[in-house]
Amino acid sequence: MSLAVAVVDATEPGNVGTIARSMKNFGFSELLLVDPPELDPDGEAYGFAGQAREDVLPNARVIQFEELVAEYHTVGCTAVTNEDPTKHTRYPFSTPRELADGLDGVEADTAIVFGRERVGLTNDELAELDEICSIPASEDYPVLNLGQAATIVLYELRTLTLDSTQHPDQRHERAEEAAIEGLHDQFADFLVAIDHPEEKRPKVRRLWRRLLGRAHPTGREARTLRGLFRKAAQRATGERSDRDDR
Amino acid sequence: MSLAVAVVDATEPGNVGTIARSMKNFGFSELLLVDPPELDPDGEAYGFAGQAREDVLPNARVIQFEELVAEYHTVGCTAVTNEDPTKHTRYPFSTPRELADGLDGVEADTAIVFGRERVGLTNDELAELDEICSIPASEDYPVLNLGQAATIVLYELRTLTLDSTQHPDQRHERAEEAAIEGLHDQFADFLVAIDHPEEKRPKVRRLWRRLLGRAHPTGREARTLRGLFRKAAQRATGERSDRDDR
Repeated sequence: MSLAVAVVDATEPGNVGTIARSMKNFGFSELLLVDPPELDPDGEAYGFAGQAREDVLPNARVIQFEELVAEYHTVGCTAVTNEDPTKHTRYPFSTPRELADGLDGVEADTAIVFGRERVGLTNDELAELDEICSIPASEDYPVLNLGQAATIVLYELRTLTLDSTQHPDQRHERAEEAAIEGLHDQFADFLVAIDHPEEKRPKVRRLWRRLLGRAHPTGREARTLRGLFRKAAQRATGERSDRDDR
Repeated sequence: MSLAVAVVDATEPGNVGTIARSMKNFGFSELLLVDPPELDPDGEAYGFAGQAREDVLPNARVIQFEELVAEYHTVGCTAVTNEDPTKHTRYPFSTPRELADGLDGVEADTAIVFGRERVGLTNDELAELDEICSIPASEDYPVLNLGQAATIVLYELRTLTLDSTQHPDQRHERAEEAAIEGLHDQFADFLVAIDHPEEKRPKVRRLWRRLLGRAHPTGREARTLRGLFRKAAQRATGERSDRDDR
């Protein structure tokens, strides 16, 4: 599947640049422009595009709306949806996350279509497009800036365009269970060493177990804390650790 | 829980305005500014803020970084994370969606903290903050524009701030099952009426069942198509519908 982004009748070059940057951030490369503003290489479009000024923006293709409809499976994005299910211009619609699920595995040249600032896509334009997508937002003020709306939809569709992200595979390396239990044992010894009242020890050990249970310590965190409690216990009982004697 | 947004040392008033607008779009109201640029009521901050120029932006509070750390549970947002789990400045971290899950049900005055353009939050700043959040993006170019990054995080946290969205409760009113089966019966009659080869009818009925099965027709869609097939069948067999005789 190819996933293109189409912007219809934008007036602010800066918005086109912002969209180009978000495209590059989320693995999109094909930008289609219907009736675009002039994109001066020294102006705001290139100024806002970040590294997309090198490829996405200069490679953008100017296209007629009719060509867009003819060549692509089209998804029109709008903040304003129908309540009345008998009217099909803006109904039924998907949220961006549902759209990502719906397009997953579908082989189709697809264009995600965003409309002009202020009024978005018109009813006549939406009627020509195949699917409708709408970002859930505050009912008091659901209309996002054009660049922000495109960024959110592309963020949700990233699962279709990116094989991997900048994140390490393991975002949170949890300590081995044995290391965590070792820390709990050390904590128990520590309570004895600092002479915490015996009858209160089970309760405070339970409190500590709950806190660590929620925090999922990393290996480094578990080792470091265990070392601190060992050292504190030794100091409290007047011992010296081997390490300190070296 | 209160959820505030903090922006540290931004230089572009337009970015502050964009963030204020996204805050209003996703149900946030408390904007905290550390070392902000001048926000001229006739300048870009107010120009980009949309309806947030009425409340979020004029109500923004200028605050010292140390006050922010002291008064709030803080979440620092950064594109650049650690790979090495023994270094804790940028590790472990959550994605925005995980952050929303993690904060759900927690009673705490929380501030989501975004850094300056270009370099984001510094290591020294991140070290003072309680949690780290990072948006998954292209490994080739993971650094989003400040306004775009804030918009995505606020979008993901909307479930904590919005009771309802602009969308109708039912985003897709599926037809009653009986109406869809009625359409299938009508389609079968239609195949007979247009004299589609008898041996091919089961296959094309199956094809039609699969297509409707994926599309989940609305009541209106099912009724309209049923009417069209009925009319076509009548025309094909030379009948006239009652309606046409009226």
